[in-house]
Amino acid sequence: MSLLSIGTVAFDAIETPFGKTDKIVGGSCTYIALAASYFIKEANNIVAVVGDDFGSDNIADLNRHGIDTQGLQIKEGEKSFFWAGRYHNDMNSRDTLTTELNVLENFDPVIPESYQDCQYLMLGNLTPAIQIETIKRLKNRPKFIAMDTMNLWMDIAMDDLKKALTMIDMLIINDEEARQLSGDYSLVRAAQKIQEMGPKYLVIKKGEHGALLFGEGRTFFAPALPLEEVFDPTGAGDTFAGGLMGYLAKSDNVTFDNLKRGIIFGSAMASFTVEKFGPERLKDLDEATVNARVQEFVNLSQFEL
Amino acid sequence: MSLLSIGTVAFDAIETPFGKTDKIVGGSCTYIALAASYFIKEANNIVAVVGDDFGSDNIADLNRHGIDTQGLQIKEGEKSFFWAGRYHNDMNSRDTLTTELNVLENFDPVIPESYQDCQYLMLGNLTPAIQIETIKRLKNRPKFIAMDTMNLWMDIAMDDLKKALTMIDMLIINDEEARQLSGDYSLVRAAQKIQEMGPKYLVIKKGEHGALLFGEGRTFFAPALPLEEVFDPTGAGDTFAGGLMGYLAKSDNVTFDNLKRGIIFGSAMASFTVEKFGPERLKDLDEATVNARVQEFVNLSQFEL
Repeated sequence: MSLLSIGTVAFDAIETPFGKTDKIVGGSCTYIALAASYFIKEANNIVAVVGDDFGSDNIADLNRHGIDTQGLQIKEGEKSFFWAGRYHNDMNSRDTLTTELNVLENFDPVIPESYQDCQYLMLGNLTPAIQIETIKRLKNRPKFIAMDTMNLWMDIAMDDLKKALTMIDMLIINDEEARQLSGDYSLVRAAQKIQEMGPKYLVIKKGEHGALLFGEGRTFFAPALPLEEVFDPTGAGDTFAGGLMGYLAKSDNVTFDNLKRGIIFGSAMASFTVEKFGPERLKDLDEATVNARVQEFVNLSQFEL
Repeated sequence: MSLLSIGTVAFDAIETPFGKTDKIVGGSCTYIALAASYFIKEANNIVAVVGDDFGSDNIADLNRHGIDTQGLQIKEGEKSFFWAGRYHNDMNSRDTLTTELNVLENFDPVIPESYQDCQYLMLGNLTPAIQIETIKRLKNRPKFIAMDTMNLWMDIAMDDLKKALTMIDMLIINDEEARQLSGDYSLVRAAQKIQEMGPKYLVIKKGEHGALLFGEGRTFFAPALPLEEVFDPTGAGDTFAGGLMGYLAKSDNVTFDNLKRGIIFGSAMASFTVEKFGPERLKDLDEATVNARVQEFVNLSQFEL
């Protein structure tokens, strides 16, 4: 089935204990769509905006992975969103060195007519107002809507965020965000409170400590793959969401048991992203490599009593 | 099969955000043997030392759970080991308020003749010298020896600790300890280095983030149960080890697949301990309650592709 993802397509400059990059392609929508491309071969649609500095070669690169870029607006005379950050030695925290909103400042999510029939919608982290507007601009409500958000919107746009939460099926956030959104330190109680705000399903990402799925009174936990080295964690969360939503769109099944499988596939995709800078590793995978990684998750977590 | 556990039987005074206790019974050996008592109904043997302040009612309490206390030395005119601590709000860190070694200062691990045939040996956290001496005093090497340790011994008794590591089958430590022992932040590399020091199997406990088992080139991960509230984490790690070793002794099977099952049972037992102060919750369980909790771990972590 078709997947529409909205988010950022941007430039990142990343510094980790292992090295640093110049401006490379990044952005939530880039990671989401690249991860989803291993599950859906067509109708992998994105809505995002870049400046005329983005370069046709970068767009061609997305197209090569089967990503439909009709919804990627190119603003002449403007610059793409740019983020620069430096990770600390433990890779669990980072400092933002630069954030240049540029084209993002006046982003209007125009949805191409050919995207109107999308069945699965992934709202990457943007202002809740844009996320709401995206849903409103779709003539028919998608079958399944997932959304990411961040602490900043809880600080400055909580009313909009709460409204957005009533319009979606699944929220995908990290543990810190779940605690701030709910005002509860316990993730179990946080999950209850957040589900009461609207979404039937909640995924709480815990980075190297895995991910929790809550819904239908059930809880599922997927570990992260223990890795010798995390080279660059940038985009891992978006990759997870993209793998999950790509898997759901491919299988067209939103039962709890299939969400569990989606979370395993999303976790597997995220485990690739952290192996190289930016989305580099996501560009050279194939089905066998992905399936072998999923088998590692099976070996890691499955047991028989 | 028979299990011999060596460690502390002691008094603790615990303060958490939920309340505080006067002196209550605690100590690594107490938690280990109580947890194991749900798996082995006889030959659940302990070697430990208390003062004459410990009280025959407390010993009777251990016996009521089928724990053999022939190896529990009672030192007349001396006092039991005492620890007092206060947990921080996040329950992940604590301050030690008091440590009174008392009888522990000159602990000589005397092994009763009736314990000599023990098949499974759990060396709770004590000086590595005592752990080594315990192994030496057994006429026949047990089938399977597991050991706990702590940062303190890495600081002041590393040579002894390294010697002990060559004598055991499985080390059970937490993530901080694994990092200090190996000098490597990556747990995957830490595990490789620690296995090279001797133990065929390594369990790394990550508290609320679950536990990892390494061995035979394989890795297994068991989640911790997501709980609404952790009331008191004291003894959770020892309970985990006791449940694991009790399960291994009961099933008398030390294959990797059975170690996986043991870790699930150990995790289930630990999830009970944190529900009440000290070892209180470990005293009123039954088989059906334990099995229902294990089923929660199945529901939490098992999936079908």
